[in-house]
Amino acid sequence: MTATSNAIDRARALDDTDPLRDFVDRFVSGGGVQAYLDGNSLGRPTRATAERMRTFVDDEWGGRLIRGWDESWFDLPLTLGDRIGAITLGAAAGQTVVGDSTTVLLYKLIRAALALRPDRTEIIIDRGNFPTDRYLVEGIAQETGAVIRWIEPPFDGGVTPDAVAEVISDRTALVLVSHVAYRSGYLLDALEITELAHVHGALVLLDVCHSAGSVAMDLDTWGVDLAVGCTYKYLNGGPGAPAFAYVAHRHLDDIAQPIWGWMGAADSFEMGQGYVPAQGIRRILSGTPAVLGMLPMMDMLDLVDEAGVDEIRAKSIALTSFALDLTDELLEPFDVEVSTPRDPAQRGGHITIEHPEFRAITARLWEGGIIPDFRRPSGIRLGLSPLSTTFDEVRVGIDAIRIELQR
Amino acid sequence: MTATSNAIDRARALDDTDPLRDFVDRFVSGGGVQAYLDGNSLGRPTRATAERMRTFVDDEWGGRLIRGWDESWFDLPLTLGDRIGAITLGAAAGQTVVGDSTTVLLYKLIRAALALRPDRTEIIIDRGNFPTDRYLVEGIAQETGAVIRWIEPPFDGGVTPDAVAEVISDRTALVLVSHVAYRSGYLLDALEITELAHVHGALVLLDVCHSAGSVAMDLDTWGVDLAVGCTYKYLNGGPGAPAFAYVAHRHLDDIAQPIWGWMGAADSFEMGQGYVPAQGIRRILSGTPAVLGMLPMMDMLDLVDEAGVDEIRAKSIALTSFALDLTDELLEPFDVEVSTPRDPAQRGGHITIEHPEFRAITARLWEGGIIPDFRRPSGIRLGLSPLSTTFDEVRVGIDAIRIELQR
Repeated sequence: MTATSNAIDRARALDDTDPLRDFVDRFVSGGGVQAYLDGNSLGRPTRATAERMRTFVDDEWGGRLIRGWDESWFDLPLTLGDRIGAITLGAAAGQTVVGDSTTVLLYKLIRAALALRPDRTEIIIDRGNFPTDRYLVEGIAQETGAVIRWIEPPFDGGVTPDAVAEVISDRTALVLVSHVAYRSGYLLDALEITELAHVHGALVLLDVCHSAGSVAMDLDTWGVDLAVGCTYKYLNGGPGAPAFAYVAHRHLDDIAQPIWGWMGAADSFEMGQGYVPAQGIRRILSGTPAVLGMLPMMDMLDLVDEAGVDEIRAKSIALTSFALDLTDELLEPFDVEVSTPRDPAQRGGHITIEHPEFRAITARLWEGGIIPDFRRPSGIRLGLSPLSTTFDEVRVGIDAIRIELQR
Repeated sequence: MTATSNAIDRARALDDTDPLRDFVDRFVSGGGVQAYLDGNSLGRPTRATAERMRTFVDDEWGGRLIRGWDESWFDLPLTLGDRIGAITLGAAAGQTVVGDSTTVLLYKLIRAALALRPDRTEIIIDRGNFPTDRYLVEGIAQETGAVIRWIEPPFDGGVTPDAVAEVISDRTALVLVSHVAYRSGYLLDALEITELAHVHGALVLLDVCHSAGSVAMDLDTWGVDLAVGCTYKYLNGGPGAPAFAYVAHRHLDDIAQPIWGWMGAADSFEMGQGYVPAQGIRRILSGTPAVLGMLPMMDMLDLVDEAGVDEIRAKSIALTSFALDLTDELLEPFDVEVSTPRDPAQRGGHITIEHPEFRAITARLWEGGIIPDFRRPSGIRLGLSPLSTTFDEVRVGIDAIRIELQR
């Protein structure tokens, strides 16, 4: 009991001194949730979002009707992309576009990367990467004859420059890695891996799904070639919100993606014979952009911009550090193990902890309004979205796990 | 003046006796719009939609959070697909799924069709098909070596069975045609074209973007192999709402599409090594479904179901017939020409009329709150969404064109 009452005091002190604490009230709460620890999987809606949707439906869609395309929707994938680039990616304008799902955008950019390196056959990817990334590469290898060079990172780690160095060669077309590993939370060294890839003439495609809005990035400075990220995690765009793609300026004239649609054409409304790709990042688009799905993330981008990514990252490290401390104090007696790096410089915004009973325990936690994610085979993942998560929520969640382990 | 006052009386009489007239009030109006004649390009929001969005954001997304995936969102592409299939396509359950954009779904199904006919090399498509359909086929021909056999339909017509018969052979893998031509409004004979294709061992992919929710369909009975359709036109799903794909039962075990993502995998949450496609129509999915974007169409499907597709089609024919009558009476003196079939059995829910000044006139009409679409080089397209369009709106729109031509 000393450990838990001590934890209460510490959580309270951390919340009291948190410079971002007032942001918590800018999000919708309710639904009997005691602790939401899955903000990296689906961010909460902001309080502004429901009203934005109502206004859009009744006034913009209902009032402007088809005129909305001319007035703003046609350019929205680019203007919103620029805003995501500026606020979260460290990307100058003209390189980021909001488009299809993460999966479809990754498909386009993997295929595009192979086309940019036509004399090379190999793709480097790791077994710890998110399923969609791995499955896509398997499918593309089957259809193009590309060869996959697999990296096997440790369960509690991720892709190191050394691991890339072991498999890279002048046959490598593309290195596809996740900036923050979806399971372990490992934050890789994007700058060093990019420099290594470029020494060998290969391209880097960075999956930033678990870092956009949580970990500060500097894609332009790092020299990353291509990136794809998710907007329903730390950018709170809502379930299934469209993803974004980044293509470095130097590739924009040459890049070609295989899904030729009217919205990626040079003149979408000319509707002429023969596809001519648009100039610039628009050529990554294919079909009609998901306007409704692009709206909620605007509210979160406002908040991220207001708070600042460096301050968000600082709170993120404080939250995950606190979660690891509490795990050591409250859960280690039950043989819970940590599969996330201890060094905050190697860690994104979530941690994963392991115990053989966690599958059953997650189900019971959900019933009690404690919402983490279960990750096979035995992991509970605690995703701590900095602007909407309190230190006391972390404390409540980990103490609830302790109580379940004690039953 | 006799002709115009006569038109007013006729429009009023048609509205008074319209059995579907009360549905008009179920849609949002406003924005200074006098006549909305582009409901086939972007349908109006229903009055129920803004409230549905608010409830979803605050209660479902905000209250259920990640639990929403288990509770209903994961299956929503299939349950909603079944509903679209039952209400608009004449498709039994298990064959329709809501997924990516029209363009991306067409890409997947064209590639899938080629894989189902590996010993065949030719794709039949027409120059009058929608740009995305044509561009996709050009891109796929470039990447796979497939050969395109172009049909050149008349400007005011579409693809006839005879035109298909001229180019089809035992080399044909796929016939890709639009059920209703986006420009001329030509409604093709899907049953006869499908039978013809099957005689030659080819597959049919029917683009139903301009028919879903407007023209009654019977895909199962017709024997159509594959279909893709849009939900932001006559299904009022909002700008950029996700499209749907139909795959006939007999192909579901064998069909394979190239964008291998976690949501099309046999067990999305197992996250194991190696892609295994899901059983059934789910395998057409790739990334995380656009849940927010799937909501508004539910309200319209309720209305379509309540009104009945046969009644909707009857009103659609009455609207386009009235529009053609008024064109003859009011616009023919200005040498306006009709590029839409006169026979209602060969016509979808819109008509296109031509005049050299229509580009400039469309801009002026928009300023006055009369909203048709301009279609290059010289067409005004009048899209008459049956549940939200009155006969008097048609009269106001065509009379406004007359006034502009008279200036």
